[in-house]
Amino acid sequence: MLSRLRFGLSGAAQQLARSSPLQPLLLQHQSGAIAVSRSSHSAPAPSATTATAIPAPTDGLRVTPVSTKPPTAIVLMNLGGPATQADVHDFLLRLFSDRDIIPLPLQSYSARFIARRRTPTIQQQYAKIGGGSPIRSWTEKQGQAMAKMLDEISPSTAPHKPYIAFRYARPLTDDALAQMAADGVTRAVAFTQYPQYSCSTTGSSLNELARQISAAGSASPLKDMQWSVIDHWPTHPLFVQAVVHNIRQALLRFPEAKRKEVVLVFSAHSLPMTVVNRGDAYPPQVAATVHAVMQELGHSHQFQLVWQSKVGPQNWLGPRTDEAIRGFAANGRKNLLLVPIAFTSDHIETLFELDHEYADVLAKEVGIEQIERSESLNEPPPIHQSHGYNCARASPASRSHRQGLQQAAWHAVVPKCTNPKCETTRTFFGAEH
Amino acid sequence: MLSRLRFGLSGAAQQLARSSPLQPLLLQHQSGAIAVSRSSHSAPAPSATTATAIPAPTDGLRVTPVSTKPPTAIVLMNLGGPATQADVHDFLLRLFSDRDIIPLPLQSYSARFIARRRTPTIQQQYAKIGGGSPIRSWTEKQGQAMAKMLDEISPSTAPHKPYIAFRYARPLTDDALAQMAADGVTRAVAFTQYPQYSCSTTGSSLNELARQISAAGSASPLKDMQWSVIDHWPTHPLFVQAVVHNIRQALLRFPEAKRKEVVLVFSAHSLPMTVVNRGDAYPPQVAATVHAVMQELGHSHQFQLVWQSKVGPQNWLGPRTDEAIRGFAANGRKNLLLVPIAFTSDHIETLFELDHEYADVLAKEVGIEQIERSESLNEPPPIHQSHGYNCARASPASRSHRQGLQQAAWHAVVPKCTNPKCETTRTFFGAEH
Repeated sequence: MLSRLRFGLSGAAQQLARSSPLQPLLLQHQSGAIAVSRSSHSAPAPSATTATAIPAPTDGLRVTPVSTKPPTAIVLMNLGGPATQADVHDFLLRLFSDRDIIPLPLQSYSARFIARRRTPTIQQQYAKIGGGSPIRSWTEKQGQAMAKMLDEISPSTAPHKPYIAFRYARPLTDDALAQMAADGVTRAVAFTQYPQYSCSTTGSSLNELARQISAAGSASPLKDMQWSVIDHWPTHPLFVQAVVHNIRQALLRFPEAKRKEVVLVFSAHSLPMTVVNRGDAYPPQVAATVHAVMQELGHSHQFQLVWQSKVGPQNWLGPRTDEAIRGFAANGRKNLLLVPIAFTSDHIETLFELDHEYADVLAKEVGIEQIERSESLNEPPPIHQSHGYNCARASPASRSHRQGLQQAAWHAVVPKCTNPKCETTRTFFGAEH
Repeated sequence: MLSRLRFGLSGAAQQLARSSPLQPLLLQHQSGAIAVSRSSHSAPAPSATTATAIPAPTDGLRVTPVSTKPPTAIVLMNLGGPATQADVHDFLLRLFSDRDIIPLPLQSYSARFIARRRTPTIQQQYAKIGGGSPIRSWTEKQGQAMAKMLDEISPSTAPHKPYIAFRYARPLTDDALAQMAADGVTRAVAFTQYPQYSCSTTGSSLNELARQISAAGSASPLKDMQWSVIDHWPTHPLFVQAVVHNIRQALLRFPEAKRKEVVLVFSAHSLPMTVVNRGDAYPPQVAATVHAVMQELGHSHQFQLVWQSKVGPQNWLGPRTDEAIRGFAANGRKNLLLVPIAFTSDHIETLFELDHEYADVLAKEVGIEQIERSESLNEPPPIHQSHGYNCARASPASRSHRQGLQQAAWHAVVPKCTNPKCETTRTFFGAEH
C-alpha cells in the first residue's frame, strides 16, 4: 500500500528498503535502536554533539534488536500539492476552505465555487510540469534521509520515523496521526517544512494538528503523545549553506565573463498587505534568510528580495518578481539568477511560475540575456542534514516538552492576531506567553 | 568657533582637547601618526586585527610628530535635526525639497508651502523634548570617540577626523566638504549613520555628496579626494551587541516576576509602500537586524518588528507601532519594551513619538501595565567600537577604493529604480554594476 510505503519502513516498504542501497542502515532502524548488550539501552544517551554515528559492533559486544520500541515521530508539515491533475479540485477545495489562510464569507459555499472555477487553470499549470506536484515524493525522500541521519546522531531517540502531514493534499494530518497511533508513537516532533514562519502556513498546520488531537476521544492514543515543535528555522546554518551551494552551482551556468554581474533575485511567495500589517512573522524571517545567505556568499553579487504569486485584487507585499525582472531589464541588468528562498522542494511556483512564466516567457519578452534558477532543496543532502540537526535539537528525549518548545516556537507574536485558534494551539503545545 | 570645534581637533578645539580627559591621546592624534624613528612612517602598517593600540615609546626609540599629514576623514552622514525651534522651518524646507526622498509636483513651491504649514506642529514637538534635536551633540561625541578608536586600531591611517554631513540641518554636506578641503584631506570614508540602507536616507546622502563633489571646479581640492563608502551595517556584531546590551539594561526596569513575559517591540521608521514595492533595501535590512538581535539574545523573549512615523494618506509598511501597542494590550500582552532599531542616537521619533505619544499617552489609554524604551545608542561606548571597526575595514589605506566599495555598497539593487542620480552616484564612487 502506498500509505504504508509513505510512512516509511514497515510492511511492504521494508521489502523495498531491503533492496535499496540503504538496506543495511534501514534494517537497523527498522529493528529499533542498536543496543549494546553490555549496557542497558536505557543508559544515558550520548549527546548529539558527541555521538555522530551508530557504534559499529565489535568483538565481545552483541547487537540486540529492540523491536518493541516505538519510533520517535518526525511529522513533516507542509501544504502539499495535487499528485495528479484529478487531485487538483480537492486540493483547491481544502485550500479555500481553510479559514486560517483565507477567511471568506460563507466559506463552505464560496470555497466550493472558487475551487470549481479555478480547477481548469490550475490543471493546465500542472499539465505543464508533468501532471502533478513533486512535493510528496521529495518530502518522502527527505524524510527518509532525515530519519537515517537522526538515528545516527541521536541513537537514544532512535528509531526515528518520518510522517507526512500535508495541509491540502494526502497524506493529510489525520492520515499522519492515524499511522502514528497505529505505530504506538508516544514522542513526536512537529517539524514545519516552511523555513520561515507564517500564520498562513506553519500556523495553519499547527492549528490543524492541535485541533485533530484535541478532538480525539479521551481513550485515543493521540492523547498520550508528547510533542515538540519546530516552527521556524530561517537562518539555520545548514539551510543557509544548502542554498548557497545551489546558488554557486547555478552561477556556473553563466559564462565566466558574465558571472560577476549576475543579480541574485531571491523570490518568495508574497502575502496580502492585510496579513503583513497584522504582524505576520514571514516577511522579516524571509529577509533574515536572504541576509544570511548573502553573508555566507561574502556579498559576492548584487541581489534583491522579491515576492511572487500574488492573486486577487488586494494589495500584496512587493516588489513583485515579474515586475522586478522587467525593472532589471530596463536598468540594464540582464543576467539574473532566480533563487527560490521560502520552500524546501520544487512546487508549482518554481516549476511553472519561475521556470515557465518568468524564465521562459517574460525574460525573453523584456530582453534578458540569460536567466537561470537555482535548484530547490529537493535532494536530501545537504538539506536533510539541516532537518536532522534541527530535529535532534528539539527531540523530546533530550529536553523536556516545554524546553523544546521554548527553543523553537512562536517568538514573533502577532500584535493584531484575531484568530483565537492560534492561542488555543499555543496553549495546547505548551508555549509560554 | 562652533564649526571648528565640531570638526574636531584643530584651532580652538585643540584648546578644549588639551583640557579634556582625552588630552594625551588627542594630542598624539593632532600631531599625526606616531612614527617610530627606526622605521619610516610609510612602512607597512600593522593590520587592524594585530595592532590594537598605539605602541608606547620605549628606550632607544624617538617619537616624531608628523604634523604635516592630513587626517583621514570619516564623514558621518545622517539626516540631522533642528538644533533649536528657530531651525525647524529650514530643516523642514530642506527635507521637503529633497527629491530623492519626497518627489513633489512643483517641488520648490510645494516644499515651501508644506514646510511653512508644518513648522508650528513640529516646533511644539521639539518644545516637548527640550527645544531641539540632540542628534548633533551625540554625533559629535560618537565621532570623536570613533576617531580615537581608529587611531588606536589603525595607526597607519591616523590621524582620523570626524566630519558631520547632515542632509537637512547644519553642518550640511557642503560644510563638511569645505572643512575637509581646508584640512587638506585626501582620503575619506563616507560612513552612513543609518545602520540599514534606504534610498530615502543613505541613498539621498550619497547622492548629495557625489553631486557636491562633481559640481566643484576642476581645481578644487575636492577632486583629489579618494573615497570609500560604508553604506549599510545592519548586522555588524558590535552594533547588534550594543542593542542587546541596551535591551538587557531596560529589561531590568521591569519587576523580576514580569520580566520574562515582556514583549520586545522593535520599532523602525516606516516607508510608503510605493518605496517598499520599488525594492528599497531598508525593510529586509531592518528585519535582518532584528533577527540578529534576537539570536544574540538567545530568543529570550517574544518580539515583533513594527513601523512608526507614517505621515500622509498613502499606504505605508506595517504593522504600525501604535496599532501594535493597541493589539498587544487587547491580546493581554501588557508589558512591553520599545526598542528603537534603525537609528544611532535619540531624535524626535524616540523622544517624542515613542516616549511621549506611545509610552506616556497611548499605553495608559489602552491599559498597558508597564512600557519602557531601551536607550538609543547615544553614548560612544560601545557603539563607537562598531563605527570604528567598520571604518577601519573600509579605510582606503588598507584596501583600494574599489575594493572598499565592493565590500560595502549597494548590493541590494533596486529593480525598479527610477532615479538616475543614484546610477550617477554609483559610478562616481566607483561601484560595480
